[in-house]
Amino acid sequence: MIESGQLVMLVSPKGKRYFRVLQTEDILNTNDGQLQMQNVVHQGYGAVVYTHLGRAYTVLKPTLYDLIKSVKRRTQIIYPKDIGYIIVKLGIGPGCRVIEAGCGSGALTTALAWFAGNSGQVYSFERREEFAALCRENLEKIGLESRVKIAGRDIAQGFGVKDADALFLDVRTPWEYLEHIPEALIPGAPMGFLLPTVNQVSTLLAAMQGGPFSSVEVLEIIVRRYKPVPERLRPEDRMVAHTGYLIFARLGAASGQDDGEPADFIFEQEKEYVEP
Amino acid sequence: MIESGQLVMLVSPKGKRYFRVLQTEDILNTNDGQLQMQNVVHQGYGAVVYTHLGRAYTVLKPTLYDLIKSVKRRTQIIYPKDIGYIIVKLGIGPGCRVIEAGCGSGALTTALAWFAGNSGQVYSFERREEFAALCRENLEKIGLESRVKIAGRDIAQGFGVKDADALFLDVRTPWEYLEHIPEALIPGAPMGFLLPTVNQVSTLLAAMQGGPFSSVEVLEIIVRRYKPVPERLRPEDRMVAHTGYLIFARLGAASGQDDGEPADFIFEQEKEYVEP
Amino acid sequence: MIESGQLVMLVSPKGKRYFRVLQTEDILNTNDGQLQMQNVVHQGYGAVVYTHLGRAYTVLKPTLYDLIKSVKRRTQIIYPKDIGYIIVKLGIGPGCRVIEAGCGSGALTTALAWFAGNSGQVYSFERREEFAALCRENLEKIGLESRVKIAGRDIAQGFGVKDADALFLDVRTPWEYLEHIPEALIPGAPMGFLLPTVNQVSTLLAAMQGGPFSSVEVLEIIVRRYKPVPERLRPEDRMVAHTGYLIFARLGAASGQDDGEPADFIFEQEKEYVEP
Amino acid sequence: MIESGQLVMLVSPKGKRYFRVLQTEDILNTNDGQLQMQNVVHQGYGAVVYTHLGRAYTVLKPTLYDLIKSVKRRTQIIYPKDIGYIIVKLGIGPGCRVIEAGCGSGALTTALAWFAGNSGQVYSFERREEFAALCRENLEKIGLESRVKIAGRDIAQGFGVKDADALFLDVRTPWEYLEHIPEALIPGAPMGFLLPTVNQVSTLLAAMQGGPFSSVEVLEIIVRRYKPVPERLRPEDRMVAHTGYLIFARLGAASGQDDGEPADFIFEQEKEYVEP
Repeated sequence: MIESGQLVMLVSPKGKRYFRVLQTEDILNTNDGQLQMQNVVHQGYGAVVYTHLGRAYTVLKPTLYDLIKSVKRRTQIIYPKDIGYIIVKLGIGPGCRVIEAGCGSGALTTALAWFAGNSGQVYSFERREEFAALCRENLEKIGLESRVKIAGRDIAQGFGVKDADALFLDVRTPWEYLEHIPEALIPGAPMGFLLPTVNQVSTLLAAMQGGPFSSVEVLEIIVRRYKPVPERLRPEDRMVAHTGYLIFARLGAASGQDDGEPADFIFEQEKEYVEP
Repeated sequence: MIESGQLVMLVSPKGKRYFRVLQTEDILNTNDGQLQMQNVVHQGYGAVVYTHLGRAYTVLKPTLYDLIKSVKRRTQIIYPKDIGYIIVKLGIGPGCRVIEAGCGSGALTTALAWFAGNSGQVYSFERREEFAALCRENLEKIGLESRVKIAGRDIAQGFGVKDADALFLDVRTPWEYLEHIPEALIPGAPMGFLLPTVNQVSTLLAAMQGGPFSSVEVLEIIVRRYKPVPERLRPEDRMVAHTGYLIFARLGAASGQDDGEPADFIFEQEKEYVEP
Repeated sequence: MIESGQLVMLVSPKGKRYFRVLQTEDILNTNDGQLQMQNVVHQGYGAVVYTHLGRAYTVLKPTLYDLIKSVKRRTQIIYPKDIGYIIVKLGIGPGCRVIEAGCGSGALTTALAWFAGNSGQVYSFERREEFAALCRENLEKIGLESRVKIAGRDIAQGFGVKDADALFLDVRTPWEYLEHIPEALIPGAPMGFLLPTVNQVSTLLAAMQGGPFSSVEVLEIIVRRYKPVPERLRPEDRMVAHTGYLIFARLGAASGQDDGEPADFIFEQEKEYVEP
Repeated sequence: MIESGQLVMLVSPKGKRYFRVLQTEDILNTNDGQLQMQNVVHQGYGAVVYTHLGRAYTVLKPTLYDLIKSVKRRTQIIYPKDIGYIIVKLGIGPGCRVIEAGCGSGALTTALAWFAGNSGQVYSFERREEFAALCRENLEKIGLESRVKIAGRDIAQGFGVKDADALFLDVRTPWEYLEHIPEALIPGAPMGFLLPTVNQVSTLLAAMQGGPFSSVEVLEIIVRRYKPVPERLRPEDRMVAHTGYLIFARLGAASGQDDGEPADFIFEQEKEYVEP
């Protein structure tokens, strides 16, 4: 038994994946014929259900990784390796209010919505209506659309959001929007950026020196995969070498103190702690 | 203003970090004197508050990364780079029920509890009472203890949990416990392992061939950091080269089908999709 | 003017490369017609010479990298990244006597012959006559065949060479031949191995513990390439992730001392010196 | 028996290494007392010889790697991993005439002299007399000084060399010297550069667009080491993450052709061949 309202993944005999928020009366039209959601509800996770043409579909509870992999895309998406680190670094979790621009096809949007939960809120900005529509479609398919507000607003005029907990910019010229960050976030809030070239990283770092930003970090996440053969274990022959550089920082505190003492974000432990 | 019950991070002039679930009447004893939590409540995030000795502490809302970094440890911890990927891969999120063994100092436990939210549940197994106590202490400090059940139980006798959504084993000989996984997880559920040596990876892979496991993957996550100097941008001179190998798999379906047709977990897209 | 006897590389309009030891009277038959070597001799490096069909060929002095890239191959070859390190580590240079098995298509053989010079000698062992012939052909094309003796001998019966300066094994089961190494090398001589899987590395290391080997090292060489665009500098999207593991060691000294004091190869500096 | 004139490495009980060009009558003064070279000559490689205080020294034939490791240094040196690749890429070998600037402590100089052999010639430029002296001292110790001409000349006025086979610049602002390269090298000759920051790489690439340079490549060489324990094989915990970026190019042909047809260096195979 799977409860109605749960998100399920239905895997075709050929490995094609369908995502569905379960409604007992629904019917899924697949390339292999019709699937009664009622059967899915009754059979439960791990079961095999059959289309009216007798094709076997496996019922699974999707992971976030499954969702990201299946994002219908017309843009380069942010990859799971980067998303995982971004989430931890930005402190995204249940109840979180987070700003993102642009949303592109919605891979990171999906992750932000997933983790923010029902009590959180994702503010997504995307100037190109085609991508905003695609992102919305991707979110609706998996039932996460209510957690995300997608706006077509040009962020050159600010984000129109206050006291957000975190921010991530996946745009070509993030330095043009730095000035609007302080008014959108709570003081000390974490932020991140993704940029493909070293020239952009350099330009962003220079712009950030104008403040108020602290704890600036630049890094890359690399995944090296192995062929999972126990008696001939070895790395894959080829790998993805680059998706982008990640830049993280913290909003330097607006002091609010009349003594003008600057808030200190240089964490002692930052130096002691070698984080791989 | 910060609401009572919120988790705050207080950073000393020297960068030492204190975590506290805010209670208006509380007093924090620091190396720099006493801090009135009342002041923290009123001043809000980003503010600087003073101890009775006049030392300035900055008030921040901690990210998960902050929490992991500050885990008091007596064991090797799992690092944020690995934790981020594990979370995405295992599909941890609000409402999730997840099994973990052993908990060690509690870095991954902290992350699992963070993402599972109030509606989720983390089942942690740790044979050594000293580590269980340390993990519990770390969780209590940040107010996440209610989301975690830590058991001293020897998992060689099973997990004593049913229908969990995911499982992660950070133990020396995970192959000894494979037989107990099917009864603990929902069919098709994701699982992960962390192992430092290739010999262990090889042994685990061989044991997993006995089934019922599918979609087996082996990988490493590498973080390469850069010195964030815009006009002299370059990688750090040295880096962490290895923490451990991550192995992921999915519980091969318990069929429950009388036609005996095997559930098919070989996802077509798995091959098309190059995930870095 | 280029002297007769020099090795030249002739690059076709489409980038195809021809190698030739210059003889004034020779004619090179290309896909683009005949090239008079006499013209090449007179025009010199960097010049453009024309076939009888009027196609322009550029005359260059080839580097070793050019030669390795153009090795006609029917096997996986050892790559320049690995070859460069092997040469330095084994101390190959003018006058060197070095043993290699198997030679495969001859990429490493080419490099060994290149560096050993006219006063050196390369002893190559290759059981499969087809590969030996291919290697010989590759060497003859570039005029290095006189520096290499290729033997079909099965090295399970020893190398039949004495007092060589270095040895490299690129065979599937190098541990089967360890016993023959001491009689083939001068005491203290360096040796290397290339193996694709961790299981093989582990087996070799275990076999080497039987001695007499010291200063054992295991490593990988990884090349990360960048798109050479000054204003959009970034790593290539994909890269070669693995060719093989390199294992190096030194032949533990046969002491020859009647006091039985063991020669000490544990170099103090080995630990201080971090070699990237 | 070792022939007089051979280079030997004498390793102290504590692993300290002494290099010496063997002369039968010489005496080596060590921290452990005097060593008679006569004994070394007679005992041969791998033998243990004793100082007058009875301390055991092992006699070895040094590899290039040994020499590079032992370079007495007052500057950052170029590492073996980079040197190996540079040598292959630049086509250094017996008889080669190669230009280098600056020589620093002489690690690359040592390698160039090693491979160029007695018939080759290394032209080293070093403005700072202290480094030139140190480099000379390092070369003399190992008997390679006759292969190297070290000049204090400022290369901003050119190299004063003609028709060299290859060139390598390890200087801070290589773009300032590009104009002097064509007159120093044979047409089509390979050249290389080592630069620590991406900003420098970007500046160099932009300057090279002014020509006449072709086949421009940018890459890094990374060495990942493993703990050589057969039953617990795993990468080292930490590694060198960065030494510098390597840039390679070929001198674009001075055509010398009156038809003005440009020499074509876009090698077809360059694209087909994935060199790791």
